[in-house]
Amino acid sequence: LRYLRDLTFHLQVTPSVLRIFNLLLVFAFSAHYVANAWMIVAGNPDGLDDGSLYLRALYWTVTTMTTIGYGDITPHTNNQILFVIFIEIFGAGIYGYVIGVMASLIANIDVAKNSFQQKIEQVEAFLRYRKVPQGLQKRVRDYFEYLWRFRRGHEEAAIADSLPAQLWSDIGLHLNRDLLERVPLFRNAPEAVLRQVVLNLQPVILQPGDVVFEAGEIGMDVFFITKGSVEVVSADRSVSYAVLGEGQYFGEIALLHSVPRTATVVSLDWCELYRIDKATFDKVVKRFPAFAEEMHAIAAERRKNDQSS
Amino acid sequence: LRYLRDLTFHLQVTPSVLRIFNLLLVFAFSAHYVANAWMIVAGNPDGLDDGSLYLRALYWTVTTMTTIGYGDITPHTNNQILFVIFIEIFGAGIYGYVIGVMASLIANIDVAKNSFQQKIEQVEAFLRYRKVPQGLQKRVRDYFEYLWRFRRGHEEAAIADSLPAQLWSDIGLHLNRDLLERVPLFRNAPEAVLRQVVLNLQPVILQPGDVVFEAGEIGMDVFFITKGSVEVVSADRSVSYAVLGEGQYFGEIALLHSVPRTATVVSLDWCELYRIDKATFDKVVKRFPAFAEEMHAIAAERRKNDQSS
Amino acid sequence: LRYLRDLTFHLQVTPSVLRIFNLLLVFAFSAHYVANAWMIVAGNPDGLDDGSLYLRALYWTVTTMTTIGYGDITPHTNNQILFVIFIEIFGAGIYGYVIGVMASLIANIDVAKNSFQQKIEQVEAFLRYRKVPQGLQKRVRDYFEYLWRFRRGHEEAAIADSLPAQLWSDIGLHLNRDLLERVPLFRNAPEAVLRQVVLNLQPVILQPGDVVFEAGEIGMDVFFITKGSVEVVSADRSVSYAVLGEGQYFGEIALLHSVPRTATVVSLDWCELYRIDKATFDKVVKRFPAFAEEMHAIAAERRKNDQSS
Amino acid sequence: LRYLRDLTFHLQVTPSVLRIFNLLLVFAFSAHYVANAWMIVAGNPDGLDDGSLYLRALYWTVTTMTTIGYGDITPHTNNQILFVIFIEIFGAGIYGYVIGVMASLIANIDVAKNSFQQKIEQVEAFLRYRKVPQGLQKRVRDYFEYLWRFRRGHEEAAIADSLPAQLWSDIGLHLNRDLLERVPLFRNAPEAVLRQVVLNLQPVILQPGDVVFEAGEIGMDVFFITKGSVEVVSADRSVSYAVLGEGQYFGEIALLHSVPRTATVVSLDWCELYRIDKATFDKVVKRFPAFAEEMHAIAAERRKNDQSS
Repeated sequence: LRYLRDLTFHLQVTPSVLRIFNLLLVFAFSAHYVANAWMIVAGNPDGLDDGSLYLRALYWTVTTMTTIGYGDITPHTNNQILFVIFIEIFGAGIYGYVIGVMASLIANIDVAKNSFQQKIEQVEAFLRYRKVPQGLQKRVRDYFEYLWRFRRGHEEAAIADSLPAQLWSDIGLHLNRDLLERVPLFRNAPEAVLRQVVLNLQPVILQPGDVVFEAGEIGMDVFFITKGSVEVVSADRSVSYAVLGEGQYFGEIALLHSVPRTATVVSLDWCELYRIDKATFDKVVKRFPAFAEEMHAIAAERRKNDQSS
Repeated sequence: LRYLRDLTFHLQVTPSVLRIFNLLLVFAFSAHYVANAWMIVAGNPDGLDDGSLYLRALYWTVTTMTTIGYGDITPHTNNQILFVIFIEIFGAGIYGYVIGVMASLIANIDVAKNSFQQKIEQVEAFLRYRKVPQGLQKRVRDYFEYLWRFRRGHEEAAIADSLPAQLWSDIGLHLNRDLLERVPLFRNAPEAVLRQVVLNLQPVILQPGDVVFEAGEIGMDVFFITKGSVEVVSADRSVSYAVLGEGQYFGEIALLHSVPRTATVVSLDWCELYRIDKATFDKVVKRFPAFAEEMHAIAAERRKNDQSS
Repeated sequence: LRYLRDLTFHLQVTPSVLRIFNLLLVFAFSAHYVANAWMIVAGNPDGLDDGSLYLRALYWTVTTMTTIGYGDITPHTNNQILFVIFIEIFGAGIYGYVIGVMASLIANIDVAKNSFQQKIEQVEAFLRYRKVPQGLQKRVRDYFEYLWRFRRGHEEAAIADSLPAQLWSDIGLHLNRDLLERVPLFRNAPEAVLRQVVLNLQPVILQPGDVVFEAGEIGMDVFFITKGSVEVVSADRSVSYAVLGEGQYFGEIALLHSVPRTATVVSLDWCELYRIDKATFDKVVKRFPAFAEEMHAIAAERRKNDQSS
Repeated sequence: LRYLRDLTFHLQVTPSVLRIFNLLLVFAFSAHYVANAWMIVAGNPDGLDDGSLYLRALYWTVTTMTTIGYGDITPHTNNQILFVIFIEIFGAGIYGYVIGVMASLIANIDVAKNSFQQKIEQVEAFLRYRKVPQGLQKRVRDYFEYLWRFRRGHEEAAIADSLPAQLWSDIGLHLNRDLLERVPLFRNAPEAVLRQVVLNLQPVILQPGDVVFEAGEIGMDVFFITKGSVEVVSADRSVSYAVLGEGQYFGEIALLHSVPRTATVVSLDWCELYRIDKATFDKVVKRFPAFAEEMHAIAAERRKNDQSS
């Protein structure tokens, strides 16, 4: 029963194939009844056997309902003519319906692709209007290409909005738990805190060479790398301190104090990061007094270490 | 008159059936006039009686306008040919219009279902992209199935937005008055306060096993159960304190003080709750000085009780 | 020239009629050229005069391109057959294009009505799901009927968003200047202040019997009546103090002090009001130091009067 | 390879031409196979050579699949009739698909124009409902005409939203760097500050005669002119202080102190400005301590100068 309900649901919401099948059925039934009626109206002037008679009637019906109308079988008596007029109108209506359904199905298949394409066209029209140079236009195109190839153009924020918080946090925990647990701050965090953290992660997509932050800027967020790699370099980019890849994080000090970044971070590759800023994190932490206390202790100790060093 | 206006309104905004009827009428009238014109142009070479002549003319017209074109009746003189050319173009235009209207009607019937289905497909594409395990994907599908089966996919927030506050609060009061009046805090609240409260209720849908809040978390909202049931358990979930069902509420202390929750609440079933948080409630209360004073008195007394206990 | 540009713009953006005309033109040109080609391919086996020959060729072309296909004129040589195959494909493509354009035009004509109707259906589905009584459902229907009859379903906020602030404030000033100047507070306000005020007016639609505010509630906004009338009554609604109509305002004290309302206000009719709240008004006033000082003087004086009375 | 991928992407997202080509291919293949099958079913009763036979079969197929149905070639045996019934249904399905694709392509071509036109119609319906005078209605129409002619109706904010911050700031820097570097405040600003500034620029479109701000109003934003020109005049508009054009800026003092504007600024032309307000700018500056200090020094010095002067 459960399985049946599931099936019904999926048929109900993914009806393209079902609807074409349904359409064929409606057409076949209509044709069958019209053919039978035509046999009664037209009689059997050529003395055909039952099978041939039915086949000819069905042939005439389908020829008419598809608006092909060869004209090799035509009505002669007034009754036949009257019958044919009704069938023509009925048949043309059915065929119009068939085309309408087809148009609707086709339009829906393309909706996602079309709306994405429109967005691209709008952006490109803007870039041309503003006379943005080819190099930048190329980067914009590359970005959209990336978005379409890897994500079919979907935006994570829209997906989060369409799911309840509990479900979205389950998905987020599944995806990021390993990553979060590498951060010392989160190691002892209760499940409920992690759940709030993943609910507030914001996705960031970077192209190769994009700057995540510059040395000297006040740090306001921590970043988690889920794809690609970044390089930590000195302010003048002359020294490379580290290369960080998938499953690593950087800038976590920003969750404790608002201090200037000590290095610049540049993406080496197409990267997907998650970000959470201090203000959001503080709001989350405030709801969990036990964890908040622990956080403050860590923050105080770090500050002491910083001053003594 | 009032009734007539109502009817007109409904015909105006629910026109599907009316428009198909209208379409048939346009088609019938056009066919009638074209048939009459054809009788004038083609004459009566076979010496038919008036009825048969009209019927044959109508038959020819319908056969042409539906683009069937048997070809058993065709024009011979130049005048007839000229007439037929015009009728063919006119008829094909009418038939194109019929198909266009059909396509438009069909597209509109499916709009709600299609937009819901697209959302599902987008979410599922995301889950596959992120390689979320089947179990979680199943829960997401279950959620959408629930939303479609019980709510045709509508979101309460969108509905609230499309109605004026007064009307929406009337609906909310009708639905929740009994529930609200069970809460001691609201028992003596003036109508205007309850109205503001229902305007600020936020719907929450829970799947079985979802956590509403965990013990230790600072309480920020009160919950009202309108469907399903939840279990109040200890922090380690070893002790069950209570099972609450439809028409009950929990966490109301959060509207008075921001204190840690003393228990964890887990849903036992598919639940629909309403939530109002302290910040919103405070903003409402501030507008009603008499009620605000009463609230503060209750809050002070509770705090005294808590300290003495 | 200016007129021509205007015309072009309107043709460009209201193309329905133009596009149908354009479609006919494309069809007529195609048919003319195809007919000429057919005359070359088919020759003149029946020895017709030039006019008749062209007419017959055009007749054949239109019969084919509209997919009617009587079949009284058919190809015989291989060359003719090859030609006809191409023309059939071309003609069917043109006809498919015609139907596509029709469907698109029809779909667009109905877009505003359809999206409004969908909103109604969604709301009504919700009301049925929640088992809201008929009386309330009727009021919701009345509201939508009002919105459609008087405003074609448009929302003022959406219109304000689609115009630049300067233009929207010009429209607002034109519509509300008389009304605003009746308010003593605004009598000496500079143009720039009025402009900011109208930019921040929020429309409110009331049904007969709706409560604007209740006595005892802290006043936070002033209301301007642009349509219908309201009654100012005592808290228990036993005494009627005044009836206010179009062009009048109430609650203006709320812009000076946050004090409880001294009376209840109920709509007598379908009303359209504009509202501006104290917080927004204060933000506006702060930008105009000269006017702000004047305001504070008025506020101080009123407070003195209130205390002395 | 890179080029090929680019090509594929563009074919994938701009498929109109490709899809029509694809449609033709599907139609041609179907017709070819159906013609071959028809040759087997119908045989060669007239003893034609292979080429003629194939051509006639193809002719029959195309005539049927386009629903033209001349009727010069019709089935006679039961097998042939059965075959024709299937082909008719198949052919009508294919043709319905062709029309559906056409309708979908046409609908998508017009989407941008249609949605813009709908917005205009909604606004105009509102203006008529509110009986706004012709002069103002004309200005609204002019605004939309401007928007369509120069920007195809796109809104810059929507475009900024659809690009990552890094990419959008690259575009903004490219467009506005020269302009920003003319402002003394920004001359020594690090790249990262400029990047944040351009991310927060808000576009403003002005009609001739629009007031940007009035003398006496507290200054809250600086304006950059990217198109058109404005006039700086005295409060009573009797004295013209300056005319500023493309690439110039005004009101930059507002980023340092909140002081009343010393002059009124009126647009002379259709203008496009960018604006950034003090609150946003302060938030940006706070993140760059070195630059913030410099800013405060400049502000302090200016204040001293103001007091001494």
